[in-house]
Amino acid sequence: MNSDFVEKLAVETESRIVLLVMDGLGDIPADGKGTPLEEALTPNLDKLASEGVLGQFDPVAPGITPGSGPAHLALFGYDPVANNVGRGILSAFGIDFDLTERDVAARVNFCTIDSNGSITDRRAGRISDDENKRVCAKVLASVKTPAGVELFLSTESQHRALLVVRGEGLSDKLGDTDPQMTGVPPLEVKALVPEAEGAATALRDILKQVKRVLADEKKANMMLLRGYSGFKRLPSMKNRFGLNACAIAEYPMYRGLAKLVGMHVLPPYRDFQDAVAVLKANWSAHTFFFVHVKKTDSYGEDGNFEAKKHIIEDVDKTIVPGIVSLNPDVLVVTGDHSTPWSMKAHSWHPTPVLMRGKLVRRDRCTRFSETECQTGGLGRLPLVDLMPIALSCAGKLVKFGA
Amino acid sequence: MNSDFVEKLAVETESRIVLLVMDGLGDIPADGKGTPLEEALTPNLDKLASEGVLGQFDPVAPGITPGSGPAHLALFGYDPVANNVGRGILSAFGIDFDLTERDVAARVNFCTIDSNGSITDRRAGRISDDENKRVCAKVLASVKTPAGVELFLSTESQHRALLVVRGEGLSDKLGDTDPQMTGVPPLEVKALVPEAEGAATALRDILKQVKRVLADEKKANMMLLRGYSGFKRLPSMKNRFGLNACAIAEYPMYRGLAKLVGMHVLPPYRDFQDAVAVLKANWSAHTFFFVHVKKTDSYGEDGNFEAKKHIIEDVDKTIVPGIVSLNPDVLVVTGDHSTPWSMKAHSWHPTPVLMRGKLVRRDRCTRFSETECQTGGLGRLPLVDLMPIALSCAGKLVKFGA
Repeated sequence: MNSDFVEKLAVETESRIVLLVMDGLGDIPADGKGTPLEEALTPNLDKLASEGVLGQFDPVAPGITPGSGPAHLALFGYDPVANNVGRGILSAFGIDFDLTERDVAARVNFCTIDSNGSITDRRAGRISDDENKRVCAKVLASVKTPAGVELFLSTESQHRALLVVRGEGLSDKLGDTDPQMTGVPPLEVKALVPEAEGAATALRDILKQVKRVLADEKKANMMLLRGYSGFKRLPSMKNRFGLNACAIAEYPMYRGLAKLVGMHVLPPYRDFQDAVAVLKANWSAHTFFFVHVKKTDSYGEDGNFEAKKHIIEDVDKTIVPGIVSLNPDVLVVTGDHSTPWSMKAHSWHPTPVLMRGKLVRRDRCTRFSETECQTGGLGRLPLVDLMPIALSCAGKLVKFGA
Repeated sequence: MNSDFVEKLAVETESRIVLLVMDGLGDIPADGKGTPLEEALTPNLDKLASEGVLGQFDPVAPGITPGSGPAHLALFGYDPVANNVGRGILSAFGIDFDLTERDVAARVNFCTIDSNGSITDRRAGRISDDENKRVCAKVLASVKTPAGVELFLSTESQHRALLVVRGEGLSDKLGDTDPQMTGVPPLEVKALVPEAEGAATALRDILKQVKRVLADEKKANMMLLRGYSGFKRLPSMKNRFGLNACAIAEYPMYRGLAKLVGMHVLPPYRDFQDAVAVLKANWSAHTFFFVHVKKTDSYGEDGNFEAKKHIIEDVDKTIVPGIVSLNPDVLVVTGDHSTPWSMKAHSWHPTPVLMRGKLVRRDRCTRFSETECQTGGLGRLPLVDLMPIALSCAGKLVKFGA
C-alpha cells in the first residue's frame, strides 16, 4: 500500500485512537495446549471481541519473521521494508541513548584478537556487563578523537555495546569491520561512498587507538563495528496522519521507535495501574495513544507458557478496563509479531488483531484468540494496512476520488 | 511481495519440504453436487487437514485465470507476471524438447492460404497428428538453413507444432507472423530491435522456403509463427532459497517448468506407487520435492466429475500415505489453479491449499475441501506467498531486521 496516498486523505480531528500492543502476543498451540492467549482467562478482551472485529495481520509479509523495528513501524503505518532501521539506531534505542541528527551509531561487539591481530573470539568470551562497562570507560578515558568529532561508547550487555560518533557531515555509508568469522583480522573501515571518507578516517583513527588501549586486556582486547546508521527521523505521525501521538512504554527500544515517528514519549510506567494512570493523565492532550507491554514477548522468548498467559490476564484485568473507561473512538489490541513460547523466538505467524469502535463492521467472533482471528472479519492483511483502517474508523480519513 | 527481499533471508538447511500438486484441483459445486474434492473419500488428506492449516491462494491475482506456466512459477515462489514465460518455451516443454540458451523457440500453427497467399484457415482444418508429422518431416527434408543456423520442427498436436532456430546471438525480439485473422497474408517476420535482424533474416528465408515446399499441400500449405522466446533459465531455487529441489512429474510440461527454475528432474513415473518409490529413493539427496499429478486437470478439462473425484481418491490412498511415511518437515498439498469440471477449462477460482508441519499455526478445519479452505487459517493470499510460508515453517528463513 502506497502510504503517500493515505496521507493525502488524513484530517486532524478530536477523535481518539488507542493502540494497545502486547509485544510478541501471537503464539501457536504446542504440548497439547492452546496458545497462551487462548488459555488465558480474558473476560474483558472477549467482551471487546464480541463488540468489535478480529483479524490476522502480517507484520512484514506472509512467512517473514520480523524484528521489533520493522514490526512496530508497520503498526504505526510505515512501510517496514522501505523504512528499515539500521542496527546501530536500534542499539541506541535499546539503551535510551539520545541520538541526534549529527550522529552515526554502530553496534559494537567486543572481541578477542591474538598476537597477529587475528580474531579468535567474535564475542570476547561473552564478558559480563560489568567488565563491558569497565572496558568502555577505559576506552573513553584514553582515546583522543579527531577535531570536531565526539565519541560515545555505552554498554548494552555482555560483549555488546553502542558506539556513536557525532560531528558535522558524517555519513553512515561505511563498511562493517566485523568479518563474521574468526582467524582473520578485523576489516578496515571503508567509505562506501566518497562523502563517507570523513567518518571513515575518524573511525580508523579511533579503532587504532582502541587496539592500543585494550592491548593488555585478556578477553575484550578489540572491537568490531557493524550496522552503522545515521539518525533521521521519519516523517512524523502528526504530519502524515494528523495525529497527536504519545507513547506509554516501559522499555527503551519502543520509546525510541515511537520517537522515530515523532510521538511524544512519556516516562516509563512502573506497573500496569501506573500505565493506566499515565494514560488518563494525558488523555486530553493527545489523539493517539501507543501503549506497549513488553513482557508477553520476554516470556515467549523464555519459553514460559504460564508467565506469558498470566501477563495477558493481567493486561485484561488492569489495562483493558482502564482504556475502556476512557471510551476511545477506536481501540486496537494486538501484538507487533508472534513470539511462540515453544519456539522461544520471534516468528512469521500473523499477529492477532482486535478492533473495537462505533464504526467497525463487526463479525461473529466472541473471543480474542489466534484461532478466532483466523475467521475474523478483518481477514488476513499486511500490518501496515491496520493504521488506515483505524484512522477511518476514527473518522480521520476522507474519501478518495469523487 | 518483493522476492529479492525473501532471498536475502534464506538459509540452506537439512529440513525437507514436499509440494504435492494435483493439477487443476480446485473446482466449483455444480449439478447439485459438491466439488470433486468435497465428494471424494479422502481420509488421509482430512487427517492432514485436522493436523495442519488450510487456505485459498490466487495463482496470479484475484479473478485472473492462469495458464500452467504462471501458476507453477507462483507455486515455486516466482512472481508469475514478472517471470511470464513465452509460448514458444512452453511448447518446447510440452513435447520435452531439450532447449539450449542458443535457441529461439516459436509456436507454429499450420494454416491454409489461397492462391493469392491470403489465409483462409488459421488452423489448416485441424489436421491430424499424423498429417502434422508428415508435413514437419517434409519441411525438414527440404529447407536449407542459413549458415550457422540449425532448424528444428516438432509436432505438438493437430495443427500445432514447435519451431526452434539455434545459433549464436539469435534474439527473440521478433514480431509474430500470425495476423490473428483470415483474408490477409501472413505477416513478414519483423525485427523489433536492431539486434534481432539476424534471427529475422534467417526466419524470413526459412519461411520463404516453407511456402514453396508446402505449396502442393491441400490443408497445411503454410505456417504461422508466434510467441518467440529465447530460453533463459530463471535464478534457481538453489540460489534463491537454498533448496536442493527435485521434480517427480509425469508430464513433460511440468518437468520443463521445473527445469526452468533449476530443479533436478527425475524420470517420469509410471503410476502413483512408482511416484512414491521415486520419492523414497531420492529422499536423502534433496530438500525440496515437487510431486505433480496431471490427471485431476485433464479430467476437469474433459468435464468428467467422477474421474476427477477418483483420481483425488487414488492420490489420497497412495501418494499421501507414501509422503507422510517420510515425515517431511513441511507438506503442502494443493493445485496450481482450478479446473472446474463443469467449465471444462482453467478458471480464476483460488486454489485450495493444505499445509502440515510442526510449526504451522493450526486452524479448526478438519476436511480438505474448497469450502473448508474458505475459512482456513492461512486466509486468502497470493500463491507466490506460499513458498515463504513453507520455507519459514521448515526453518529456512531468518529474521528480517532487528
